[in-house]
Amino acid sequence: MPGNRVVVYKGPGTVGVETIDYPKLELPDDVVNGLGVPKKAPHAAILKLVSTNICGSDQHMVRGRTTAPVGQSLGHEITGEVVETGEDVLFVKPGDICSVPFNIACGRCRMCNEGKTGICLNVNPARPGAAYGYVDMGGWIGGQAEYVMVPFADFNLLRFPDRDQALEKILDLTMLSDIFPTGYHGAYTAGVTTGSTVYVAGAGPVGLAAAHAAQLLGASAVIVGDMIPERLAQARSFGCETVDLRESAELADMIEQIVGEPVVDAAVDAVGFEARGHGDGAAEQPATVLNDVMTIARAGASLGIPGLYVTGDPGGVDEHAKIGQLGVRIGLGWAKSHSFTTGQCPVKKYNRQLMNLILSGKAQIAKAVNATVITLDDAPRGYAEFDGGAAKKYVIDPHRMVAA
Amino acid sequence: MPGNRVVVYKGPGTVGVETIDYPKLELPDDVVNGLGVPKKAPHAAILKLVSTNICGSDQHMVRGRTTAPVGQSLGHEITGEVVETGEDVLFVKPGDICSVPFNIACGRCRMCNEGKTGICLNVNPARPGAAYGYVDMGGWIGGQAEYVMVPFADFNLLRFPDRDQALEKILDLTMLSDIFPTGYHGAYTAGVTTGSTVYVAGAGPVGLAAAHAAQLLGASAVIVGDMIPERLAQARSFGCETVDLRESAELADMIEQIVGEPVVDAAVDAVGFEARGHGDGAAEQPATVLNDVMTIARAGASLGIPGLYVTGDPGGVDEHAKIGQLGVRIGLGWAKSHSFTTGQCPVKKYNRQLMNLILSGKAQIAKAVNATVITLDDAPRGYAEFDGGAAKKYVIDPHRMVAA
Amino acid sequence: MPGNRVVVYKGPGTVGVETIDYPKLELPDDVVNGLGVPKKAPHAAILKLVSTNICGSDQHMVRGRTTAPVGQSLGHEITGEVVETGEDVLFVKPGDICSVPFNIACGRCRMCNEGKTGICLNVNPARPGAAYGYVDMGGWIGGQAEYVMVPFADFNLLRFPDRDQALEKILDLTMLSDIFPTGYHGAYTAGVTTGSTVYVAGAGPVGLAAAHAAQLLGASAVIVGDMIPERLAQARSFGCETVDLRESAELADMIEQIVGEPVVDAAVDAVGFEARGHGDGAAEQPATVLNDVMTIARAGASLGIPGLYVTGDPGGVDEHAKIGQLGVRIGLGWAKSHSFTTGQCPVKKYNRQLMNLILSGKAQIAKAVNATVITLDDAPRGYAEFDGGAAKKYVIDPHRMVAA
Amino acid sequence: MPGNRVVVYKGPGTVGVETIDYPKLELPDDVVNGLGVPKKAPHAAILKLVSTNICGSDQHMVRGRTTAPVGQSLGHEITGEVVETGEDVLFVKPGDICSVPFNIACGRCRMCNEGKTGICLNVNPARPGAAYGYVDMGGWIGGQAEYVMVPFADFNLLRFPDRDQALEKILDLTMLSDIFPTGYHGAYTAGVTTGSTVYVAGAGPVGLAAAHAAQLLGASAVIVGDMIPERLAQARSFGCETVDLRESAELADMIEQIVGEPVVDAAVDAVGFEARGHGDGAAEQPATVLNDVMTIARAGASLGIPGLYVTGDPGGVDEHAKIGQLGVRIGLGWAKSHSFTTGQCPVKKYNRQLMNLILSGKAQIAKAVNATVITLDDAPRGYAEFDGGAAKKYVIDPHRMVAA
Repeated sequence: MPGNRVVVYKGPGTVGVETIDYPKLELPDDVVNGLGVPKKAPHAAILKLVSTNICGSDQHMVRGRTTAPVGQSLGHEITGEVVETGEDVLFVKPGDICSVPFNIACGRCRMCNEGKTGICLNVNPARPGAAYGYVDMGGWIGGQAEYVMVPFADFNLLRFPDRDQALEKILDLTMLSDIFPTGYHGAYTAGVTTGSTVYVAGAGPVGLAAAHAAQLLGASAVIVGDMIPERLAQARSFGCETVDLRESAELADMIEQIVGEPVVDAAVDAVGFEARGHGDGAAEQPATVLNDVMTIARAGASLGIPGLYVTGDPGGVDEHAKIGQLGVRIGLGWAKSHSFTTGQCPVKKYNRQLMNLILSGKAQIAKAVNATVITLDDAPRGYAEFDGGAAKKYVIDPHRMVAA
Repeated sequence: MPGNRVVVYKGPGTVGVETIDYPKLELPDDVVNGLGVPKKAPHAAILKLVSTNICGSDQHMVRGRTTAPVGQSLGHEITGEVVETGEDVLFVKPGDICSVPFNIACGRCRMCNEGKTGICLNVNPARPGAAYGYVDMGGWIGGQAEYVMVPFADFNLLRFPDRDQALEKILDLTMLSDIFPTGYHGAYTAGVTTGSTVYVAGAGPVGLAAAHAAQLLGASAVIVGDMIPERLAQARSFGCETVDLRESAELADMIEQIVGEPVVDAAVDAVGFEARGHGDGAAEQPATVLNDVMTIARAGASLGIPGLYVTGDPGGVDEHAKIGQLGVRIGLGWAKSHSFTTGQCPVKKYNRQLMNLILSGKAQIAKAVNATVITLDDAPRGYAEFDGGAAKKYVIDPHRMVAA
Repeated sequence: MPGNRVVVYKGPGTVGVETIDYPKLELPDDVVNGLGVPKKAPHAAILKLVSTNICGSDQHMVRGRTTAPVGQSLGHEITGEVVETGEDVLFVKPGDICSVPFNIACGRCRMCNEGKTGICLNVNPARPGAAYGYVDMGGWIGGQAEYVMVPFADFNLLRFPDRDQALEKILDLTMLSDIFPTGYHGAYTAGVTTGSTVYVAGAGPVGLAAAHAAQLLGASAVIVGDMIPERLAQARSFGCETVDLRESAELADMIEQIVGEPVVDAAVDAVGFEARGHGDGAAEQPATVLNDVMTIARAGASLGIPGLYVTGDPGGVDEHAKIGQLGVRIGLGWAKSHSFTTGQCPVKKYNRQLMNLILSGKAQIAKAVNATVITLDDAPRGYAEFDGGAAKKYVIDPHRMVAA
Repeated sequence: MPGNRVVVYKGPGTVGVETIDYPKLELPDDVVNGLGVPKKAPHAAILKLVSTNICGSDQHMVRGRTTAPVGQSLGHEITGEVVETGEDVLFVKPGDICSVPFNIACGRCRMCNEGKTGICLNVNPARPGAAYGYVDMGGWIGGQAEYVMVPFADFNLLRFPDRDQALEKILDLTMLSDIFPTGYHGAYTAGVTTGSTVYVAGAGPVGLAAAHAAQLLGASAVIVGDMIPERLAQARSFGCETVDLRESAELADMIEQIVGEPVVDAAVDAVGFEARGHGDGAAEQPATVLNDVMTIARAGASLGIPGLYVTGDPGGVDEHAKIGQLGVRIGLGWAKSHSFTTGQCPVKKYNRQLMNLILSGKAQIAKAVNATVITLDDAPRGYAEFDGGAAKKYVIDPHRMVAA
């Protein structure tokens, strides 16, 4: 039995690549014990990784801003080739190349029935919702690895229709496991539609994905705000307008310069709780972005909030922030009749249609987020560069299957 | 030309009844000047009040929790008989008895086109949205009066189909101007539907209206929480379950006792920013109710927030509260993938269908909120008793048209 | 190994009760061969029937209006106790009493992902969608029987929370497998909401269920039309208005007499293709009901069409009707900007919330449809009486588990 | 007082340009008498036409396929400059260039409140809904003219933000009065969204607009079917795939050749009742297109039906067709759980957002439909060429304001 090499959290600021057991068609112990289900998983499949990306939310763990223990395996953006299936896997077969939604879901509970796969009730005894390689998200092994076990495979896997075409478009398709749907969810729940003007806070990969999604949804103008010039340049590279938040100007004024009024139709918070105040060198102000998007969204607007807010943040700026209680300008939002959509993107809700758009050549998400291929051994470098603000989305290629 | 007697704010804790000019078919000066439109209003009508209710949001002004000036006329829950119309009023006629949505709207702007009459762009130069007799809501004269001017009358007025039937059901129909639609909006935007379990925070008139609306929307269980025993008894009088927030038990535990699990499908904040903490004698904690509803709403739930949150509160508990920035547990809401709908109810969206339900005898809103008729001269007493926590909804009857 | 007694179609006008093999955890051959999946079904469960109803759509087969072969097993309205589960059934257990949606669904395909379980792609190689005991709906054995096999049991079964409570309310809960959701789907897709006036064509069980659903959705008036006096009396027994279509008056006029205008807000076709023209003794006119609902629905209305229309009808009135091509007044519908929703009800979309309403005592569907218990041996009599127009819904009780 | 030159129907196959009275701020007599409203219209405006297009639905009248009387003025696709306003027109001013939705609406009735401006209750005593220059649509004078009166101008007019920009983009903006929103409505109600495969039946201007709208809504593939090679070439010119319906192949097979399966996600009927059967020289078969779109739409699909179906067609192929009763394969639609949306597009629902897309350069509707400018005097030639199948959209330029 071969082993399995996987990226592991080694303590604040450090990741490594370690060898663990090759995956089995079995559920993690916490799930087995917590839910009272058998360990044997005839519904599961084992995938050989084709590509697996580093995510901004991985950085929260690596920066020590969560309760992740040393040794936590990492990686939830998974695309792979099916190599083994349990006997109740009927509709995917060895050899199929598939995208794996980062949110693990059973397909059988009330939440999954309603399409809310981000809060599945049967995959994490600690709370609704689970993910691969993530603290508090069930004991599922991470997928920045050579191999990974995917439970409820018929439900969770999105099969690409053609293997060769899939490998050719892999740098786009690899974004279907998380950030492309997550960005799309942000834009979609912000109500972006034909003709909308849109502001996206944050030019990291999720923000860029939200910006591209807004274009695909028919926005008439997409403005991206950030403080890192390289990331803003990346946003401009595919047709977005940008505002540089290091400047002292009011955000509303900068937006007025672009669209002719100090408000937009729709706004997306693609930053979350590790937000900083405006201006060069500003300190962390965890509700800044949330309050910004209320300020510049038109009365009656919906706000999409894919940026992560947490219930426990050991590094929070004060006691309130440590439990996720932030100074939100709810009076402002109320006066403007705003609506807010929060939470993990339910990837399955969107991944098939986004796949179709990639395969038809109408979405260029790899280009938008600047997909950059590295080896599994280079993962620590990828983490470090990404944390440093590189305008890149790192795609790990464990088996050298990604074309140059 | 006769005068017009109207309820007026006289300073913190005090209202009086004063005589002002009889209304004209003219717009207020701030609207004329701010929007650059003519003062003459051929689209307006003058109504003789049939009934006009005291609202919880009036109390915010009277308690001195807003910037309302002394002399502010009051009253935005208006039902009346048309007595005069401008020459561009085509579809209502003198003699018609009509309900007047508290949110004044032009019917011609983008927001009105989208059904968002609570944030009309053409009726208040200071911000989107206007109301009769309310601070910061445009210079419109209040309707706790003998007569009131209603602009854009064809758009704003809901005509009752039969005059005699209307006067017979007037105690129910008078609730169409604000609290019945507002409560319904809270329940509706919380996603209440066939079979839902529902928690409504607050047993004031809006909370009771939300609870009744939840019943009409098909809830399988409606639980109302408050700290005033009389109000809880009122909630039980029409079939709701109740929880007494003066008790030391956890809200989730009390809910589990009722529905068998510590969560509900849908939750409504019918309290707003003047919330108090739990337990007898607890101090004001302006985000308590918001955080409560996140705690006890199921993952994936929508939260309806008809309770008022403001951008300026001179009496706020701290500097943040004074500008409407509250300690919201957004991390909790995010972890549970909650959605939030805030803002004024756009009354026109719901008033016709609720009228039909009243006229068919299927809604009993007057009974639910304990409608209690008083004269115009008794308005000061009504304000005082309501502020003291009376489990009553005061209906002013300026012309003795309401049957005993 | 015990046998299994089941109701079987014996030729036009005749059904019998025969003994077949006890079910196995295996898929039918047509599904195995057509989809290329294993016969062994670890996802399946065997249920001991608690109750199983005769459906109006069974009558189409028994009347010889379909291509059902002699020997076709019957029954798709199934409630039962789990007695055996495959090894991939994780969330229901022997002893659980469950409702079984009549539409068989895999829970793993694109349609199931979208909640469209009535057109599942993996359960019938002949076309999207499958059902137990129904012609052209896959080779699944019918459930008017002692035992039945349910595939994809975790997905398909709706577990009742308490066994004793379930048996106590079984006459209501038995309607969750088909007609209560089907009637609700009709009303819901017709846009019935708070305050609507509603017309339901047909007072058979689906029509009565649609009428009760309309009440639960908040209709201000529900009118039911039929030609059988007993069925109309049944509709009136729970608060509906009725129109007798044997009368020579225009339908619109009869409706105007009730609601004061010749149109309603929402209309439901609960009849389908075996419709007859108006007036006593009128001949079959297969598009009559469809054209009626267009005539009396308000401009802008949505029409719910749960009544069955088929692609092949050997007994059709002419060559066009035999292939399901009917004379539809599409010009009228277009002029009125109508929308139409057709097709099988996706039961899973509604059954949980309707269960909650039954268990809370707020829905009384058994009373609305006049549930009448018979033994399995009495099934032939039940079919005959129902076909004769009895205002009853026959519930077969194979194991004498239904309380008197 | 100057006169007003206008295009007039002169009998089957013939139109002319005649001089009538210059418009007044007055309602037509049928509206005044039928609704009991004053003739004087302070809510109205007079526009000087900037551009006004010939519509396919005009051709139904000119071909004698309606009951339009000789002398009927024509033209409902209107863009103009405001030259006079009544005293209750507050928000548009002389000099403003505006688009006029073809559906006249009051902005004050229940249907307008719900956004259903295509079936306004106050503008046509004969039935819900009205239009300029159209039989049975109220006595409103047509807008293929020099000047036109627009009632309820604040509600009906869409003001372009900048006059110079408007004149520069006028060939695109002129399509906002009807076909761009109508095509968009077809695609939108067919459920076209990110990644959809789409079939549009008909490559006339509405079909081409639907195809372009489908692209803007994010379709992954758009297929257009027609029998006129020039129109198919026009569809290909902006990136659509095409199928030539003169070929003997099955439509489903031709679609499978393009998208790899014999079905599409969404389908639009942009033809209506004057449809012909497939194959070169096929006769009129009025339900052919409707049945086609059911055949090739996936199970569960929604069908958008902007193509016109009428209640009276003097030239219909048989007695049923003459009253708009057609042989619809409703059994097929039902088996596939299809939904259908019919009726006039409510232009106001979409025109603002489509304007924004045009002004930002992201929609190129003039190019898609091959906008071709002619003078008012050339209108008869435009009608004739269009009727002959020219792949052009004729834009009349009465005042030589459209840049070459």
